[in-house]
Amino acid sequence: MKRWILAAAVAVALPYAAASPRACSIDADLHPFMGVLEPAPGDIVPPTGMTGFAPDSFDAQLARERRMALAIRPDTLRRHLRLLTEEAHVAGTPGDRATAEYVLNRLNAYGWDARIVEIPVLLNYPKSTLVELVEPDGGPLAVRESGVAGDKDSRDRGVFDAFHGYGASGDVTGAVVYANYGDVEDFAKLAGMGIDLRGRIALVRYGKVFRGLKVRNAERAGLAGVIIYSDPADDGFAQADPYPRGQGRPEDAVQRGSVQFLSEGPGDPTTPGWPSGGGGKLQRLPQSQAKGLPRIPSIPLSWGEARKILQSLDGPQAPRGWQGGLPFTYHVGPGASKVHMKIEQDYAIRPIWNVIATLEGRDHPEQKVLLGNHRDAWTYGAIDPNSGTICMLESARVLGALTRTGWRPRRSIVICSWDGEEYGLLGSTEWGEGNAADLMANAVAYLNVDAAVSGRDFRANGSHALRDLMGEVLRDVRDPVQNRPLWNTVVDRAWSEGRSDWARLNRTRKSRQEQVRPFEWTMGSLGSGSDYTVFVDHLGIPSLDMRFEGLNGNYHSIYDDFDFVDRVVDPGYVMHQSMTEVWTRLAMRLADSEVLPLRYTHTATFAYDEMLAIEERAEDVAAGRPDSARFTAALGIAKQAAARLRNSAFALEKRADDALAGRDLWPAGGAAGINRALMATERGLLGPGLEGRPWFRHELYAPGLNTGYAPVPLPRLGQAVLDRDPRAYARGVGPLAEALNRAAAEIEKGK
Amino acid sequence: MKRWILAAAVAVALPYAAASPRACSIDADLHPFMGVLEPAPGDIVPPTGMTGFAPDSFDAQLARERRMALAIRPDTLRRHLRLLTEEAHVAGTPGDRATAEYVLNRLNAYGWDARIVEIPVLLNYPKSTLVELVEPDGGPLAVRESGVAGDKDSRDRGVFDAFHGYGASGDVTGAVVYANYGDVEDFAKLAGMGIDLRGRIALVRYGKVFRGLKVRNAERAGLAGVIIYSDPADDGFAQADPYPRGQGRPEDAVQRGSVQFLSEGPGDPTTPGWPSGGGGKLQRLPQSQAKGLPRIPSIPLSWGEARKILQSLDGPQAPRGWQGGLPFTYHVGPGASKVHMKIEQDYAIRPIWNVIATLEGRDHPEQKVLLGNHRDAWTYGAIDPNSGTICMLESARVLGALTRTGWRPRRSIVICSWDGEEYGLLGSTEWGEGNAADLMANAVAYLNVDAAVSGRDFRANGSHALRDLMGEVLRDVRDPVQNRPLWNTVVDRAWSEGRSDWARLNRTRKSRQEQVRPFEWTMGSLGSGSDYTVFVDHLGIPSLDMRFEGLNGNYHSIYDDFDFVDRVVDPGYVMHQSMTEVWTRLAMRLADSEVLPLRYTHTATFAYDEMLAIEERAEDVAAGRPDSARFTAALGIAKQAAARLRNSAFALEKRADDALAGRDLWPAGGAAGINRALMATERGLLGPGLEGRPWFRHELYAPGLNTGYAPVPLPRLGQAVLDRDPRAYARGVGPLAEALNRAAAEIEKGK
Repeated sequence: MKRWILAAAVAVALPYAAASPRACSIDADLHPFMGVLEPAPGDIVPPTGMTGFAPDSFDAQLARERRMALAIRPDTLRRHLRLLTEEAHVAGTPGDRATAEYVLNRLNAYGWDARIVEIPVLLNYPKSTLVELVEPDGGPLAVRESGVAGDKDSRDRGVFDAFHGYGASGDVTGAVVYANYGDVEDFAKLAGMGIDLRGRIALVRYGKVFRGLKVRNAERAGLAGVIIYSDPADDGFAQADPYPRGQGRPEDAVQRGSVQFLSEGPGDPTTPGWPSGGGGKLQRLPQSQAKGLPRIPSIPLSWGEARKILQSLDGPQAPRGWQGGLPFTYHVGPGASKVHMKIEQDYAIRPIWNVIATLEGRDHPEQKVLLGNHRDAWTYGAIDPNSGTICMLESARVLGALTRTGWRPRRSIVICSWDGEEYGLLGSTEWGEGNAADLMANAVAYLNVDAAVSGRDFRANGSHALRDLMGEVLRDVRDPVQNRPLWNTVVDRAWSEGRSDWARLNRTRKSRQEQVRPFEWTMGSLGSGSDYTVFVDHLGIPSLDMRFEGLNGNYHSIYDDFDFVDRVVDPGYVMHQSMTEVWTRLAMRLADSEVLPLRYTHTATFAYDEMLAIEERAEDVAAGRPDSARFTAALGIAKQAAARLRNSAFALEKRADDALAGRDLWPAGGAAGINRALMATERGLLGPGLEGRPWFRHELYAPGLNTGYAPVPLPRLGQAVLDRDPRAYARGVGPLAEALNRAAAEIEKGK
Repeated sequence: MKRWILAAAVAVALPYAAASPRACSIDADLHPFMGVLEPAPGDIVPPTGMTGFAPDSFDAQLARERRMALAIRPDTLRRHLRLLTEEAHVAGTPGDRATAEYVLNRLNAYGWDARIVEIPVLLNYPKSTLVELVEPDGGPLAVRESGVAGDKDSRDRGVFDAFHGYGASGDVTGAVVYANYGDVEDFAKLAGMGIDLRGRIALVRYGKVFRGLKVRNAERAGLAGVIIYSDPADDGFAQADPYPRGQGRPEDAVQRGSVQFLSEGPGDPTTPGWPSGGGGKLQRLPQSQAKGLPRIPSIPLSWGEARKILQSLDGPQAPRGWQGGLPFTYHVGPGASKVHMKIEQDYAIRPIWNVIATLEGRDHPEQKVLLGNHRDAWTYGAIDPNSGTICMLESARVLGALTRTGWRPRRSIVICSWDGEEYGLLGSTEWGEGNAADLMANAVAYLNVDAAVSGRDFRANGSHALRDLMGEVLRDVRDPVQNRPLWNTVVDRAWSEGRSDWARLNRTRKSRQEQVRPFEWTMGSLGSGSDYTVFVDHLGIPSLDMRFEGLNGNYHSIYDDFDFVDRVVDPGYVMHQSMTEVWTRLAMRLADSEVLPLRYTHTATFAYDEMLAIEERAEDVAAGRPDSARFTAALGIAKQAAARLRNSAFALEKRADDALAGRDLWPAGGAAGINRALMATERGLLGPGLEGRPWFRHELYAPGLNTGYAPVPLPRLGQAVLDRDPRAYARGVGPLAEALNRAAAEIEKGK
């Protein structure tokens, strides 16, 4: 039997490990907690076994992980957080340097080989910032928080006034128009309503798309400046009680952040596609030639200040869906009001500091399992990113302790504390570009955690090859709130969110006389917005991004501080403990498995299913439109390539499972050839780069060109449908098929 | 050719009537306006011809309608409105009697045979009303509006304090829980959260379900009293600028209304199923035995007053979707606050006054086309219902004028000005019950207009047999805002709302190897909430309900007055003109057509499609649940019956069309036999009455048991799926099939 199937009904009453002792050798005593695998909804089969490990090595692996997990301590996590968030630490500032040294010292103390990697990058700090309502009543608007009693950090004056990373300097005065979320359709709608946009100032709300694209869209629509405010409908009182009572955004909290045009390429905009500080031929562009930076000034505001402008707008009522949470009817403007923005940015090439630490592998020191989290923050970064940093440090500590029992991982584990993420994924991108050859040859996987804990909902997006590994780890980690395997919590939510879609798809399959499928938990695809981007999109390294999610109303404000996490978000640090455990188990299994736990059957199935879904969307957007709007290109060759990848991956997975279980002999050289093939497969999915943004090379995963954060899988086809561009769609089929065929050819080399 | 097909492409550039003179004999000169039938989206075919009329009589009919339409005058409409809304006219009050006499006098003056029909019914008026926040800070809450400057009516003190029709008296004090819209799921969710409901006071918001069911649900959940308030998210500032600037609900506006359990049966609750005042065996029940009335007190409040309670609630945050538009985070309670409600109702048997007027038919005076609108209002009723009343009076005037040119309709037209609608459709229900035998023998159709104009979106729900008639009339009436046929406006909106569903359904059909269908405009089914209920649900008379819809934020408040309509909603009375024209053309065609324009092919197709949709919903709600939750009953016999109805109807329609076009001879006796069959068909769809509410007898149409307003078509099956009751589902198949077979048998008699 290739994989053990544990009947859900049996698993109800007993710890799953003990439920069927003959079928499953995992010993309940060795299991880190008495997690009861609950019956899954529907016919969902819980994961069994441990992908990539021989059945007779499960117990030892679980025992080792259990020792690791029992060593994770809330007090260490809390102490790290207090120390990391004492000062604001914007990239390149002395506060930031101090956190780099703290992380360096801790990692070295935990037995890792850590060093600081300094990289020179273009950064801006605010020189002076003025926003004022010159009509009707004048007076400057507040560009920083006032702080709350009982939270000393929130009253510290050492934090910059609110500004936008990579924002432009400028001095503009104009009437204001309200443009909802500021996406492409929003500005088009205003133009369609006959609202004159040229030379005016856009007031847009945060949410839906990455903030840099709001500024890009405004600039392209002819506006002279942009104010981005946080509407209470999106992360304020309409979502939860504001801090300090709850996790909602307070009236005066400002969301800082970068306004780079992220979906067109991350990293230092003056070194696009090559490493900053690389020297030699890799000269830095003059700032004026850098792409992906706004030319019109922008500024973030709190809703308390923005409402003074919004309430004064006249003109037509805002269209359906544009109304936010403030207690009056929104109008699109303009009105009697005029705003004056005067913003001076201080741009310079400044150093940032990645901290890179290695725990060298025993058998394959050159092979790397990468764990990454950024360290720089717009203010204190207690959630974003240092809730992740403390988990990383705690992971390093418990793994270090494990080495003192004699254990060493088979492959190297590399911890990356990135700097400059907030400006545009600078530290990870420049490092990835600088080490591209080594990474493409030797990286096994990249496991990213940014803001680790803002709530209790576990969410993971990633390369689909990692799906089984992720599910098996979730099975083995306790949900500290519901005291059951995280797998149950995650699957229950997936079921309640995905059930009707699944039923609908099965109905379609039935009517097509295809086989119906059981409900399965799947991961979402990666878009962008954190440091996995260079690894998955540029280097083709299987990547994961994880968090415990909740409302993060203090996001990028001065209130993202120690008190918020310590008193409101995770007082017992139990969610942080769980994240540390998930992350470390993933790393241990990737580093110690005999066969790499990468399952490209899932990747192939995902690609195939996504093609069917895209075909339907293409049909829908073209329905009732003229023939020229119809998507006529057939996806046949790409579907065949996906089928080939699936079959080849399945054959290799079966061969590996049989060898692991002793049903078959290993090929000469053991698992090495299989692992080489598995490591090369994701790289095979890289192509020549997407149209208009060649830095993005993955043919299955990319952020949407107009979303920034959110993924548009199979980006050539997916983006073409969004853009209603049948010709781009037709051009996209070939490269997609080629990539899938390349990946299949790589996996077919696995002997 | 049975029906003329006019190519959409040809219709672009020219008035449609002139586009293809040989194919279509409708003369552009005779058409009431130079309406340009625009190209429809997709492959939608615009309606042609005039169902039930011989091709050589189209022109004469259009010319007559044109004379009618040109006579409709905004100044008459406006004068009627000013006079009808001078005083508040709650059912049974002197103000109400005055409007009855005004309508009577006008109708007689216009040449109709009008009389007042007095009916004694149970009514309550408020004797005394007190709601106060006794903790934390005390003080009574306002139970009436304060009025606005410049609107004298809104400051008139002759309006009752806010109260609920058929509300209970009571004196209760208790802690408050917030229960969202107060539907069955909302109270279940609170119980699931561990909130103690017994003896407490529910604060619920208006919307989603009929208000009486909110009180019913609270009562069943053990609460002691109910406050229903208008949240600004639903009809206040979050939807539009509040009156007097716009159509949003002001801070102090209270929605009065009935709290009868409408979905269990309308009409006087002390004479359920028989006419009030009928005498003899039909004794009135004592009030204590009446069903469908609340036993716990309830009161409506404005959001300005309700926020004082809501803001003081503690306990868990309100679940997702429960947050309204007020600027703080909603909690479910309880909290420190306590509310005291002391409500005394003055119940008595009081007279109400229907006005019934007849324009007698030339050939078939016994056959009746009924036009209905209610006249009673909670305050001034400028929109609800007198925007409809003025259209009805104007229709009566122009039809009366037409008789002076020598015209008389082939069948009788009956105008019904109902009283007591607001309490529970009293006037229409009691009159319908009292005249059941005559109506079931002789009523052709019932055309209802309640609030005729609260905006610009034409909406019609109705018996599907009337679909072609409705579409053809929309083609011939101008949209006064867009200056094109109303048909185009209605179809464009239907297309934008229904396009993706249509594409999805066609995909399903394709994969099932069924024929794909062109997009079609269809009417929604009738639920309840206005006077069509007795006609369609109890008597089986094909019915329509129409309005021009928009946000009606002043609904049932003191601001539903002359100034609101005259200055804000429809200053030129152009929408009222259009409604008058639509309504009158419908009546004229139903009254004058040679063959009745009832097309039961549409009814059968609707029933069949709805069965498929219900099967899918049944599958979805059962997916992943235990076998006992699965809906296993097969709908085969009901589908066969629908197919039989469709085939029989098609055969009759073809025979009639051939005879009308001179391609075939009429049967002996002309169209009379066909018309008798068409009139009997809808009656065939009546069954023995629905489970638990036998007054509702239509097997295709009914309001949802837990919605009140919204329809649940094929109610036995549809309600069973909503209730997750596979046994009720299985019981429902037989009666549905029998009804469809009865209807088919009736239509098969048409010779």
